[in-house]
Order: sequence, then structure tokens, then C-alpha cells
Amino acid sequence: MNITRAEIDAMESRYRAALMNSVTGYKPANLVGSCDGEGVTNLAIMSSAVHLGSHPPLVMLVLRPVAAAQHTLENILATKHYTLNHVHSDFYKAAHQTAARYDRDVSEFDEVGLTPLWRDGFTAPFVQEAAIRIGLELREHRPLEINGTQLLIGEIVSLDVPAGALMDDGSIQLEAAGSVALSGLDSYFETRLLDRLPYAKPGNG
Amino acid sequence: MNITRAEIDAMESRYRAALMNSVTGYKPANLVGSCDGEGVTNLAIMSSAVHLGSHPPLVMLVLRPVAAAQHTLENILATKHYTLNHVHSDFYKAAHQTAARYDRDVSEFDEVGLTPLWRDGFTAPFVQEAAIRIGLELREHRPLEINGTQLLIGEIVSLDVPAGALMDDGSIQLEAAGSVALSGLDSYFETRLLDRLPYAKPGNG
Repeated sequence: MNITRAEIDAMESRYRAALMNSVTGYKPANLVGSCDGEGVTNLAIMSSAVHLGSHPPLVMLVLRPVAAAQHTLENILATKHYTLNHVHSDFYKAAHQTAARYDRDVSEFDEVGLTPLWRDGFTAPFVQEAAIRIGLELREHRPLEINGTQLLIGEIVSLDVPAGALMDDGSIQLEAAGSVALSGLDSYFETRLLDRLPYAKPGNG
Repeated sequence: MNITRAEIDAMESRYRAALMNSVTGYKPANLVGSCDGEGVTNLAIMSSAVHLGSHPPLVMLVLRPVAAAQHTLENILATKHYTLNHVHSDFYKAAHQTAARYDRDVSEFDEVGLTPLWRDGFTAPFVQEAAIRIGLELREHRPLEINGTQLLIGEIVSLDVPAGALMDDGSIQLEAAGSVALSGLDSYFETRLLDRLPYAKPGNG
């Protein structure tokens, strides 16, 4: 079925949000860890991390203008440090619960039962339960006037990967690590590898 | 294992690219369709589409500064129209092959064996074989000085979704549509729904 722009604009807002959050396809499921100047930790599930470059290693995060993202944004702007932690199939329910609108002085780690992991010289908490953890230092913050979203560009300063999931060519076997994919606002998926394909060159097709 | 930033910087470049393309987690697999002013069509697989907003419905695309993305970028800037088409498990090999470095006057549709679908008043081709197709009109183009990537923000002007995959709440059942997820540069995945979780509120945890 074809849906026109006028039909999208006329949709009930929660229906439209569910649809628009589904149309781009599968999304990564990550927990973003941060901390304010007083040591109050924050943890927020986000599905908007994008690879921006390898050299230097850069990750972009899109923060929607919603209450749940506000504490994360303030913490990152204040301390410049944040973490990205994969969500795995054994704790996706706890990860999802971080999206609830907790007060600023409440730590989502405590509320959902995940464990902060600290590293020397790094002011943001990692998630102990995550097998893949990225430490990021803020490089750029770009608010987008078009709809009030915020782009954060961070440089990878440290990376944890399970040795068993790291392949000889540098790629990570995400299914071996137990990472889940997200779609829409609330659907969590396990995966099954279909294929790895060779580098594409004209004439292969 | 912990990998430091110095170790990342010292990696062989293809190894580093494979690793850095894996660290954010699963990615959506989409084909971006475009056309130049002379009617030469272009099709490029991209894994960087991000939901940016629902009202208005906006999608952001990150274009890496590589040859394969150059024709797509030029076409979109010239015509302002482009399409995003889901990759499904029955044609992921053809989709992957669009990443090869074809000459400007060659259409990836012809080379990989996919079918352009045209709509009245819209200058970019959709992919007939894709069940989920988005027509986009360019709203903003932001080059990022930090590493030469280009952000394209587009507004959804039309949307095709199979009626059988559209749920009562507006979300799309991506596994029913056959959409695949990507990781790294070359790994394609089918999915299995683990769970849909209720809207998170304090006290659920």
C-alpha cells in the first residue's frame, strides 16, 4: 500500500511515531552512559548511533528532543565523556526500562539493575553487563534547527570487545556477542547470519 | 579485551575499517536510488539511514567521502529527490554488488539486475523488488569538516509498506517484510523477534 505525505501528517501521533520509527529498518540497540558533575549516573537506551569514520574513529549519536534524553545531553556537554554499550539478549528488558522518565537525581543503573563500571581518567560509567563497550570523548555538538534534535559527534578513546567475537579481519561477530537489533520503539530481535559477501567490484554481478 | 585508542590508530587500515564499522552494532540495509539530469539512474547500498523525526517525517543519511557515494550525492543535490528502499533476504547479493565502483554513465540497476520503479512527479527511481520504499525530498545538506562526511536530511513525501506487515499500532513488522540487517561492511542477517516491550514508565523495572 502507498501512504502519501498528507496521510502521514493526518495520523494520530503515537501511530505516526511507531510507523516513522520503523521505516528506516533495523537499528542498533545501545545504552548511553553518562554522569553529572555531582556523580549522579545516567543510562539511556538509544538506537541512533551511526558509524561516522574510522580514522579518526568517530561515532555520531542523534538525541531526540525528549525528556529522557535531556539528562544525557546535559551530562555529556558538562563532562565531554560518555559511553556506548551494546544491549544483549540477556538484559534487553532492563535496557528498555531505562527509557522511563526518571528524576534527575535517580540513577537508571540502580532502577533497572545494571552495574556501572568505571575506568581511570574517564568520567562516564560503562555497563558491566555489556560485552562491547565504547568510551567516547565529545568532539562536536550540533543542534538541528529543523526539528530540535541534537547531533553529538564523539571520538572513540577505548573499546572493549570479547576476544571470541573478534574475527581475523577486524570485524566483530555481533551474534556471537549476543547483541540485539531494534525496530520501531519497542521490538527487540536476535539475528542469524545469512552470509558474508566479498568486497564488491564491477564484474562480480 | 580492551583496545586503546593508540592501538586503533596503529591498526592496518582495512582491519580498522572492519572493526570501526562493527562497533556501533546492527545497521539497516537500504538501497538509495537517485538519477542525474540526463536520466542516468544510480543505486547505492547504505547502512547509515537514521530516523530524525516523525512530524515532519525526517530521515538523515550519512554519506562517507568514498567514490561509490559521490554519484549519489551529486544526483541528490541536483534533483533534490532520492529514494530509500529496504534490502530483503531474496536480493541482498544484488544490493551488495551496488557498492562496486561503476562509471558515472553506468546504471547499477542494470548491472546488478534490479528494476527501477518510477512515480509521477518524482525524479528518483524506487526499487521494484523492495517491499518498503520511501520517497525523500532533500531539506538540508551539511558537510562535516571533521572528516569530510556529508549529512543529508530528507523529508518523507511518500511511503510504500506491505499491508500485511503494517501492525494496528503503526509499527512495521520488518521480519514479515523480509528486511535484513547489516553489520560491519559485508555481513547480512535475518532476524527473529525476541519480544515487544510496553512503553517504559518508572516503577515497571
